Amino acid sequence: MEEKLNELKEIQGTLTDLGNASAVLNWDQETYMPPGGVESRGRALATLARMAQEIGTDEKVGKLIEELEPWAAEQDPDSDDARLIVVSRRGYDKAVKVPPEMVAERAMLTSQANAAWREAREKSDYSIFEPFMEKIVELNQRYADLFKPYDHAYDVLLDDYEPMMKTEDVKKIFAEIRPKQVELIEKIAASDQVDDRVLYKFYPEDAQIEMGDEICRAIGYDFKRGRQDKVHHPFSTNLGYGDQRITYRVDENFFNPYIFAALHEAGHAMYEQGIPKSLSRSILYGGTSLAIHESQSRLWENLVGRSQPFWEWYYPKLQQRFPEQTEGVSLEEFYKAINKVEPSFIRVEADEATYNLHIMLRLEIEIGLLEGSIQVSELPQVWNDRFESYLGIRPKNDAEGCLQDVHWSFGLFGYFSTYALGNLVSLQLWEKIKEDIPNLDSHIRKGEFGQLLTWLNEKVHAHGSKFYPQDLVQRITGEKINGDAYIRYLNKKFGDIYGL
Amino acid sequence: MEEKLNELKEIQGTLTDLGNASAVLNWDQETYMPPGGVESRGRALATLARMAQEIGTDEKVGKLIEELEPWAAEQDPDSDDARLIVVSRRGYDKAVKVPPEMVAERAMLTSQANAAWREAREKSDYSIFEPFMEKIVELNQRYADLFKPYDHAYDVLLDDYEPMMKTEDVKKIFAEIRPKQVELIEKIAASDQVDDRVLYKFYPEDAQIEMGDEICRAIGYDFKRGRQDKVHHPFSTNLGYGDQRITYRVDENFFNPYIFAALHEAGHAMYEQGIPKSLSRSILYGGTSLAIHESQSRLWENLVGRSQPFWEWYYPKLQQRFPEQTEGVSLEEFYKAINKVEPSFIRVEADEATYNLHIMLRLEIEIGLLEGSIQVSELPQVWNDRFESYLGIRPKNDAEGCLQDVHWSFGLFGYFSTYALGNLVSLQLWEKIKEDIPNLDSHIRKGEFGQLLTWLNEKVHAHGSKFYPQDLVQRITGEKINGDAYIRYLNKKFGDIYGL
Repeated sequence: MEEKLNELKEIQGTLTDLGNASAVLNWDQETYMPPGGVESRGRALATLARMAQEIGTDEKVGKLIEELEPWAAEQDPDSDDARLIVVSRRGYDKAVKVPPEMVAERAMLTSQANAAWREAREKSDYSIFEPFMEKIVELNQRYADLFKPYDHAYDVLLDDYEPMMKTEDVKKIFAEIRPKQVELIEKIAASDQVDDRVLYKFYPEDAQIEMGDEICRAIGYDFKRGRQDKVHHPFSTNLGYGDQRITYRVDENFFNPYIFAALHEAGHAMYEQGIPKSLSRSILYGGTSLAIHESQSRLWENLVGRSQPFWEWYYPKLQQRFPEQTEGVSLEEFYKAINKVEPSFIRVEADEATYNLHIMLRLEIEIGLLEGSIQVSELPQVWNDRFESYLGIRPKNDAEGCLQDVHWSFGLFGYFSTYALGNLVSLQLWEKIKEDIPNLDSHIRKGEFGQLLTWLNEKVHAHGSKFYPQDLVQRITGEKINGDAYIRYLNKKFGDIYGL
Repeated sequence: MEEKLNELKEIQGTLTDLGNASAVLNWDQETYMPPGGVESRGRALATLARMAQEIGTDEKVGKLIEELEPWAAEQDPDSDDARLIVVSRRGYDKAVKVPPEMVAERAMLTSQANAAWREAREKSDYSIFEPFMEKIVELNQRYADLFKPYDHAYDVLLDDYEPMMKTEDVKKIFAEIRPKQVELIEKIAASDQVDDRVLYKFYPEDAQIEMGDEICRAIGYDFKRGRQDKVHHPFSTNLGYGDQRITYRVDENFFNPYIFAALHEAGHAMYEQGIPKSLSRSILYGGTSLAIHESQSRLWENLVGRSQPFWEWYYPKLQQRFPEQTEGVSLEEFYKAINKVEPSFIRVEADEATYNLHIMLRLEIEIGLLEGSIQVSELPQVWNDRFESYLGIRPKNDAEGCLQDVHWSFGLFGYFSTYALGNLVSLQLWEKIKEDIPNLDSHIRKGEFGQLLTWLNEKVHAHGSKFYPQDLVQRITGEKINGDAYIRYLNKKFGDIYGL
């Protein structure tokens, strides 16, 4: 059996290598590749993807898993090897259901759709993107049908990003928190508004990068196993064990985008940096789901990075670095500024109180499109109506409205809800952390993040993708994913800031 | 037949993709990869190499070539398709002779040998490297034996870098030029020496890079299909059609290393940039041999970059850029400074008059080691003796002596002579270019390089690796590779400079 297990691990090691190679090619494409390389890079990536698919869906893999299952059933069910077989079975069964032609079709369609989306967005004209959106919805429907029977077609799509998570669960969670978030936002809108002019001074790029470097180092992002580079749209990426990079963009006239994205991406990267080497050449390597990943990035971005203790530590340093920009602005005022609540059209720049509403809107529309209760042609109208009812403002055009996010143009359906789920999980973890590290705030006030990171390493990162998200959250917090902690957090934090 | 041809091309396209992916991974490793990534990067590269070998030596490939050969024999023998089959046959027959275990053995040995060489060089102690050198010589001997019968074991190694080139030919060429170069160097040594202090002023890194950028753009290196990045040891690399990058290092206290290496690497990259897209996914993509590649890099570095017309164009700009450093130094004096002849221990920094002697020494030693007429244990002694007899100076230690170059530690035998052959070819081409573009000097004096690059594009680059090096040189110049033009060039140029 050991021989067979090693054979399976050998194959997964090869798949890891191909995945890492693709990650390097993608990273380079976003950072340094000259424009002339577009076509050949696309071909190289397609070849790597095709080979990975061939190797991963080879009958030999299915046979190995089948032979190993009885043996794995006798092992400690939480052991790496037992979980390896369980997770491999799931991955294999999903992968073999998708015909290679559909993979190729998706690649072709989304490459055209993405180009159309860019043009449509630039011209703020949904009609340019609409025919591609039709095809994308249709393709996702067909994709879901490969996995029949299902309770809901959307389950199939969601499951690709949140293993074992059900649409019904997500809807229930969102239904509970939505009225509470809407209520909070209405109360805030009726209060005295926060002055955030300090954020719109001129912050030179170099000085921002130095600050980000200092902060990321302090929270525990390891630059010996990473680096930060400039891109159009920030992301983090795992290029192989020991190499987790983050990227950035800088707005010199707005303080927030660089530093909070840096904290966010460092949070993702630190998750991957925390996964043990023993898992690094198997299917258990990498974060277990997008929501759990997002729980890490949002924890560092918001629960740490937008907290009062954090700025008690860093605001004096910030004042030293940017004396003119911060002149006459107290810590309290700065803290309120970076936490200003204000409904806006841009999801990625949304504050903590409104963010989830952006997600719920998208989830409902995705489900409606799949079910056929929303037509692709009426998307702008539906988007704007629902946006207004949730956030109290109405997009002026398609660019501000349904063309805002890139995801659909890449064919990604079922992805958005993981962002909101991640927010919720970050608070479930945070309440547990506060129990386990009672003096956490005083650590953060001194710029000490070691205990926090160690906790995350041990409770979350160490498992790689051994445990599915609901199971992992249950193991750590005793509860399944839910929004109670998040609502408690929002009410307390913004109650204090807005004196509600 | 068309179907079979397409099938073969499809496979070669896949191999191109894998090669391009490896090039990206290697480039990243030398430029930006954090130290933590070493191990996983090594594994990813090994996997890509293994897959390429598996695909390239698959029996299916041999069968396709066999089936296509009769058809190819009826095509125009100079057509892309006919040459594709001929070159594929050669590549396949070579590749299948090498057992995968030997490829793995070589990878393992050279990775250890390279580490030992670094330590040995640092400590200037050959004994640290000697046991690995023993194994490397033995491995190369065994490798050569896979290709028995041969005229000379060294033929097999040389053929990997210079297709169809024979050891006897190289020895004959070198035997003719050696006494002439030695004589010239002796005459120069007896003349008034050149004052090159201008080169040892402080030249700030940023200003050097800007200069290099300006010059590389002017000669025709296309930054839309390339870029330059900082590394320890400069190189150029092809990351896929439309993406040929160069790299640099800067010595702020010595003018030469940056700019001449930039011209050199741009020369390599422009060769690859000039190969037509129609060849870009086949075995005919890429330069045809190392010597032909070197003819391009040395042409731009030396025949253009160390020429008087070139500095008639650029020296006024240089004076503007570096007014203090060049103060009181005339164009004539600057031109002499960058062409100063002085025997030294470092091959890569050698002047045009002494360079080839560094190579001949290495070639003779490689042949001696393979034949057994030189023992690995006596390498330092043999190196120093021969160095002194060729160049008139004797290395003080192993670091200056036989540990100077990295090549042997990578297992590369048969590689060095291509550097000298490239020098010779560059002059054979240059004499032809001067015939075809009679007013070339006046173009260069105006900073116009378009006609020169077009000539190289048409005569050399356009063919990719369709024609083997000797054949290509014969087609262009009417002669096989020889040193006559090079000796004429050296005598004229350095005769003028040193008033011989």
